Amino acid sequence: MRIYSFGDGSAEGTSVMTDLLGGKGANLAEMNSLGLPVPPGFTITTEVCMDYLRGLGGMGPGGGFGAADAEGTLPDGLMDEVVEALGLVENQLGRTFGDPSSPLLVSVRSGARVSMPGMMDTVLNLGLNDQTVEGLAKESGNERFAWDSYRRFVTMYADVVMGLHRTRLDLLVDEMKKTRGVEADTDLTAEDWKEVVSRMKGRVEESLSRSFPDDPMEQLEGAIQAVFRSWNTARARFYRREHGISDEWGTAVNVQAMVFGNMGDDCATGVAFTRDPKTGESIFFGEYLVNAQGEDVVAGLRTPQPVNRDGDESGDLPTLEETMPEPYAELVAVYKKLEKHYRDMQDIEFTIEKGRLFILQTRRGKRTGAAAVRIAVDMVREGLIDQREALLRIDEDQLTQLLHPSVDPNASKTTIARGLPASPGAATGKVVFSSADAVRLAGEGETVILVREETSPEDIEGMTVARGILTQRGGQTSHAAVVARGMGRCCVVGCSDIVVHRDGSFTAQPRDGAGSEWTLRTGDTITLDGSTGEVLLGEVTMSEAGLDGSGLDELLGWADERATLTVRANADTPKDAQTARGFGARGIGLCRTEHMFFEGDRIDAVREMILAEDHKERAQALEKLYPMQRSDFVGIFSEMDGLPVTVRLLDPPLHEFLPGNDDEISELAGKMGVPASRIRLQVENLKEFNPMMGHRGCRLGITHPEIYRMQVRAILDAALDVQERGQTVQPEIMIPLVGTSRELEILRGLVLAEADDVFERRGQRLDFLVGTMIELPRAAITADRIAGHADFFSFGTNDLTQTTFGYSRDDARFLQTYLEPEIAVLADDPFVSMDYEGVGALVRMGTERGRSTSPDLKVGICGEHGGDPRSIAFVHEVGLNYVSCSPFRVPVARLAAGKVALREDVN
Amino acid sequence: MRIYSFGDGSAEGTSVMTDLLGGKGANLAEMNSLGLPVPPGFTITTEVCMDYLRGLGGMGPGGGFGAADAEGTLPDGLMDEVVEALGLVENQLGRTFGDPSSPLLVSVRSGARVSMPGMMDTVLNLGLNDQTVEGLAKESGNERFAWDSYRRFVTMYADVVMGLHRTRLDLLVDEMKKTRGVEADTDLTAEDWKEVVSRMKGRVEESLSRSFPDDPMEQLEGAIQAVFRSWNTARARFYRREHGISDEWGTAVNVQAMVFGNMGDDCATGVAFTRDPKTGESIFFGEYLVNAQGEDVVAGLRTPQPVNRDGDESGDLPTLEETMPEPYAELVAVYKKLEKHYRDMQDIEFTIEKGRLFILQTRRGKRTGAAAVRIAVDMVREGLIDQREALLRIDEDQLTQLLHPSVDPNASKTTIARGLPASPGAATGKVVFSSADAVRLAGEGETVILVREETSPEDIEGMTVARGILTQRGGQTSHAAVVARGMGRCCVVGCSDIVVHRDGSFTAQPRDGAGSEWTLRTGDTITLDGSTGEVLLGEVTMSEAGLDGSGLDELLGWADERATLTVRANADTPKDAQTARGFGARGIGLCRTEHMFFEGDRIDAVREMILAEDHKERAQALEKLYPMQRSDFVGIFSEMDGLPVTVRLLDPPLHEFLPGNDDEISELAGKMGVPASRIRLQVENLKEFNPMMGHRGCRLGITHPEIYRMQVRAILDAALDVQERGQTVQPEIMIPLVGTSRELEILRGLVLAEADDVFERRGQRLDFLVGTMIELPRAAITADRIAGHADFFSFGTNDLTQTTFGYSRDDARFLQTYLEPEIAVLADDPFVSMDYEGVGALVRMGTERGRSTSPDLKVGICGEHGGDPRSIAFVHEVGLNYVSCSPFRVPVARLAAGKVALREDVN
Repeated sequence: MRIYSFGDGSAEGTSVMTDLLGGKGANLAEMNSLGLPVPPGFTITTEVCMDYLRGLGGMGPGGGFGAADAEGTLPDGLMDEVVEALGLVENQLGRTFGDPSSPLLVSVRSGARVSMPGMMDTVLNLGLNDQTVEGLAKESGNERFAWDSYRRFVTMYADVVMGLHRTRLDLLVDEMKKTRGVEADTDLTAEDWKEVVSRMKGRVEESLSRSFPDDPMEQLEGAIQAVFRSWNTARARFYRREHGISDEWGTAVNVQAMVFGNMGDDCATGVAFTRDPKTGESIFFGEYLVNAQGEDVVAGLRTPQPVNRDGDESGDLPTLEETMPEPYAELVAVYKKLEKHYRDMQDIEFTIEKGRLFILQTRRGKRTGAAAVRIAVDMVREGLIDQREALLRIDEDQLTQLLHPSVDPNASKTTIARGLPASPGAATGKVVFSSADAVRLAGEGETVILVREETSPEDIEGMTVARGILTQRGGQTSHAAVVARGMGRCCVVGCSDIVVHRDGSFTAQPRDGAGSEWTLRTGDTITLDGSTGEVLLGEVTMSEAGLDGSGLDELLGWADERATLTVRANADTPKDAQTARGFGARGIGLCRTEHMFFEGDRIDAVREMILAEDHKERAQALEKLYPMQRSDFVGIFSEMDGLPVTVRLLDPPLHEFLPGNDDEISELAGKMGVPASRIRLQVENLKEFNPMMGHRGCRLGITHPEIYRMQVRAILDAALDVQERGQTVQPEIMIPLVGTSRELEILRGLVLAEADDVFERRGQRLDFLVGTMIELPRAAITADRIAGHADFFSFGTNDLTQTTFGYSRDDARFLQTYLEPEIAVLADDPFVSMDYEGVGALVRMGTERGRSTSPDLKVGICGEHGGDPRSIAFVHEVGLNYVSCSPFRVPVARLAAGKVALREDVN
Repeated sequence: MRIYSFGDGSAEGTSVMTDLLGGKGANLAEMNSLGLPVPPGFTITTEVCMDYLRGLGGMGPGGGFGAADAEGTLPDGLMDEVVEALGLVENQLGRTFGDPSSPLLVSVRSGARVSMPGMMDTVLNLGLNDQTVEGLAKESGNERFAWDSYRRFVTMYADVVMGLHRTRLDLLVDEMKKTRGVEADTDLTAEDWKEVVSRMKGRVEESLSRSFPDDPMEQLEGAIQAVFRSWNTARARFYRREHGISDEWGTAVNVQAMVFGNMGDDCATGVAFTRDPKTGESIFFGEYLVNAQGEDVVAGLRTPQPVNRDGDESGDLPTLEETMPEPYAELVAVYKKLEKHYRDMQDIEFTIEKGRLFILQTRRGKRTGAAAVRIAVDMVREGLIDQREALLRIDEDQLTQLLHPSVDPNASKTTIARGLPASPGAATGKVVFSSADAVRLAGEGETVILVREETSPEDIEGMTVARGILTQRGGQTSHAAVVARGMGRCCVVGCSDIVVHRDGSFTAQPRDGAGSEWTLRTGDTITLDGSTGEVLLGEVTMSEAGLDGSGLDELLGWADERATLTVRANADTPKDAQTARGFGARGIGLCRTEHMFFEGDRIDAVREMILAEDHKERAQALEKLYPMQRSDFVGIFSEMDGLPVTVRLLDPPLHEFLPGNDDEISELAGKMGVPASRIRLQVENLKEFNPMMGHRGCRLGITHPEIYRMQVRAILDAALDVQERGQTVQPEIMIPLVGTSRELEILRGLVLAEADDVFERRGQRLDFLVGTMIELPRAAITADRIAGHADFFSFGTNDLTQTTFGYSRDDARFLQTYLEPEIAVLADDPFVSMDYEGVGALVRMGTERGRSTSPDLKVGICGEHGGDPRSIAFVHEVGLNYVSCSPFRVPVARLAAGKVALREDVN
């Protein structure tokens, strides 16, 4: 069967036939079967689409069949079946297609298996010509409406089917308005439109050397072909590749009788949601326009009126409930039926034609993150769905939105630059270029955005008071990115579209900005979108984060009950730990001790330690650091009372702590009382060609054992301090960057020896674990041997991705090219979503080999992937014990961990 | 059995019992069985040693049993067996141990399973006391000799057995000489020595609160224990760890009757080789001293005399043949018997006591590389050994020595700095600090050593004329190292012991130099040892490379016949190719096109290409490079007529080609006619944090396809040019740094498309292969997919080692610590010898997975490991098809490839 009819309370198709009928077609069939007032019509299947496209021949550049602009012929006999199906519609409505007195007009729309919003084409009012337009005028009693409809049809058909861009015809409307000396379309008369239509058809013929088809059946055949072809436009192919949609699915075509909300004041058109899509509140929520067509609602030229006073108590525009009580009552009955039937919030398009309600479409309503959570939780309470379904319905990205302010997707905005989205959320504020300015302006009550070429430890104070951080250089693991994520502060890094100048300004020139350039100075306002990497001019409408009353805690509780993976957080300070615990983290999976080194005047002691010329000097400097580290750990352990805390010993190369420019060197030389030349020489000597692969991690632990000894002492003394308060402490000491079992053997020995010293001195003991990060390919490969010295493994997938691919995360600008659909070397950024084939294979290998030696080995992951749902699904399948991510990602990870366990239960 | 006796033409042990009797003990037994005149004695087994050491209890820090300075008791009854064995010796010689009139004196020496030269202890003249010394005096008719022997015994025994350092007793000799007003030991009389002995015994008692033992049996028991304990001295443990010798083997003790070469002028002692150890020439070669003990030969105080005139025609010192014709004739008979028996060149120690010849030791004689090859080949000709044995006897290191001049191992030298040994060989020359000075001085006929902070393409000319290159910075893959290896030029890089100053000098301060500092200026002479990384002061004695008449070609021919691995060379120029072919390379496995970019004024065109602002500019610059590359390839293909040539497309990040300092930037700006600021900005923008993992290799090929297209065109046009001359060309185009199958798919497509263009234009075709380097962990892991697009794989184990370990080769200074015996994170430098566990696992995985898709895949290796024998053995076992290495390593690789195949045949 190639065509499925619907109408009059029955349909040939059903809601499960989306593969064949597309989402919209299946939905129209379903609504008919529910007995809803739907304009009759029929659906031509996706199989016909693929047959037709194959007939066009040739492979498009994206691998699909048929170029979007080729012409072809529909499969044999199809139009005969179309005529037959059209007959059924004619019979139901008592109108005839092409009949000059009582013409049937139809819409022709695409409808693929999954929604591809705005990607494909639609033609409305089809069936109009110089004869039928008169019938429409007579029937509606509104000649102006009829000719206006006709001109809309001509514009749309010429654009979609004939390939003449609509702007070429819209010009003629503008010319007519100029001639008539009027401002608005609504000021043009029926005669004017008649003239416009005539000129449009002339312009079509002139431009295309083809006349505009007057035969309704020829119009219909052309529109069907055009909708099929729209499957293969460049933007549709791009969208499919981005969303993982197969090129082979094709689109169905829905031909449906037109109904008109613009035939007069007893007509209306509108959109309604069965719950509030912003908050999720259970109110019937919607907007309508009297005497209008759907596209008028979308165009936003008139202010729509609310359907009722729910959620709009203070408004003064008349509601549908007030102006058209009967159709409103009918609509209320429909929405209740629909929501109960679909068991989800619906987005309903309706039209009232001369007082009669028609439902044009219903679909799952899009909603904000907050609404998604609230609706799911409410529906569980209402018994509409179970907990499992509630969980599966929430997309993890929606939680991110819920946890941070975000740019309103419908806001108008000017993008002046794009960088790497380093920390999600959005923020508007005044540009400042120094930490000092940030502190000053913030002190005056301003919200500020800190813009730097790159940040360094000296900027911490400014970053703390800023709402957002923008850097010209640096990647996802740069200082700015890491610190911002820890603070939950919105951040865009590596924004090479901007150049920060020393005079307190920056220039911005987006790559895709066609030559536009902006200069912004201290005090100018910008908005950062840390979720997309966009830098926007001025203030932009935001959706605020909404946590309260959202039902999130309840939802995540259900997730936790099902999850087998535990979710921990990466947290470096007592404040981070508190945040993490607040978000439900069940421990700290990564506490980076080096971040403590940057705070306040500690950096001076760190630098003295690094620049020490002998053991004595180094020991003195370490003694200064010891009490600071101890007190940090006391704070963290105390916050995490009863939960495990994994502390990673010093990881970065020492040169990262040293001053970078001459001023800083001189200042440090002054503080240390040594010549600047000496410091400059040492800074020079410590420099590395490839610091990512340099003298860091456990390599430092082996060459400078006194550093790790101090850290172990600080950790265990702090743990005993907290234990003395009656709290429970579970320290886990983690050795970074191990590549050989011997490294871990040596350092485990060092840790245990230091622990014995501490316990003997204090006369108390404490249980703790010693484990390692697995973040080098060699560690994964030799995990069986390494596991002999480890109580736990934690995969550091950031570095493991860098070394497995040989990509320097800070330099990998070529990744942009690799992700382009035409190149497609990579489907996803491997630093965002774990590369299963390569990095994932090593995670699996490391886990299996580690457990082959040590079956009870606790295994987790603490790279950025720990907060990525797809990566979480992968490590769940591998059998890891926990994931650890930024505090603000903890809810996302909890949801993902629960969902993957749920899905597994079913399979 | 705990004791094995030998003497009188028979022995209880045999030569195969080295595990039990040690090398020396088995050898003494063997010589006795051969009927050679060997002083009688007996061997206490290694098992007794381990029993004894276990009895001492406790674990030494190296894991061995017993501290070296502990005292203990020998196993029960052992001394009874010793007395019994001693009885046999007494019977044979008609002397009695401890007999005041005709005393038997013995030596007590260690002897482990494998030789550990100088590592363990020896006591000579044991059995002397105030009574027996008189018997020795009477018997020898030389009272002075007897007391001198006694004083030597006391010194040695006190040192080795009692732990009083010999310098404490030697002082007394100096005091006596001062008292007597004489200069030399030989000026002291019997009475003087008697007095010295007495004082020495007093000093022992005073220092140790123990008297020197007079009882010969007590002396013997103490000496046996001391030799056993010497197995566990720190230096012995260190030596074992360095040489892979088990701590569990233990040492045997050899107790043997003393014979004296210093009883008078009818006595002598000497060392002889059955062939010339320097050249391998088949002459009997040796040195002796009249009236001397072995240690006098070693001490070098007297000039030894030649045993005959063979190889010393012009000498004037009397030969042994002349002075003692009968013992000499006997010695000649012995050496012939020994060489025939052992089928190898022997190093023989002999003593003539009152005209009677004694053979003290025979062992495989150490020899130079040239001698090793010549002796092996000669012995095959002589029918002494077969080709297989000849091959197995040559150590690959000996070939390296043969191919380059080397520092004479016995030369005295002052090491002023140590760097990384980047290219083997040694060179002496005058220091210069610039390419221009190098060219100028070399033009004046001087030999020069170019010393630079680091080298850049501008230094090529200077490097070409210099004998050696020394750099302060940079690692094994730095520009200096790579270029020098290609030229076969001796090179030391990354020498952080030196600081190069701008005033034409450098200061050197070796880490282990205890504060010494040297300053060298232009024109000062230094010697570089590129095999050890040492920088030596002034001129040092060298052994020149010797290839002619060495029999090397014949030997390597035998290796080639047996090898299953083919040996290719890494060669970037026609000259390299010629060298490689001369050394027997069967193709080029790696031709690095970027090195061509540095030559002459090409670098300007390269820089223009990189800095091009649009496609047109870039294409123009590439057009300038195209003919140069084409002509290079013509030269290389022509040299390699009939053999395959693998050309790697551009690999390094573009910033490597850009000028580094402001002067160079200004110069380039002038040449290009653009502002310096523009170039500076571009240089800045191209900089990378971790260039090793940056925008390079196939990543460039994908973002800048025009570069690879130009290179492919140059390769294939050149190949057709050479084919037109009637030569045979086998180009293999290699894509570097592939990490995903898609990269190779795209670039293979690019290569094939470009090839079609070339073939169509020329109207000729040519067979060629397209393959890839496997140098990233991800490539090895996904090799099954990558192999779908590859005709061959070549493992780039340099980069694979960097990424698998996460070590930046240029920065890995911590490796020195990792290789220290007490740390022992790594047994070998993984950049020199392949890490089997990690990198090797990936090589195996990549090969197996690649061949799972593509069973006939040709697989090779082209990293530095391609010339390392242990790595060659590994890749042979994995089943690779070829290795590729520096031209000068080709002979080494051929030998190794032959030997590993041979060994496999046997197993």
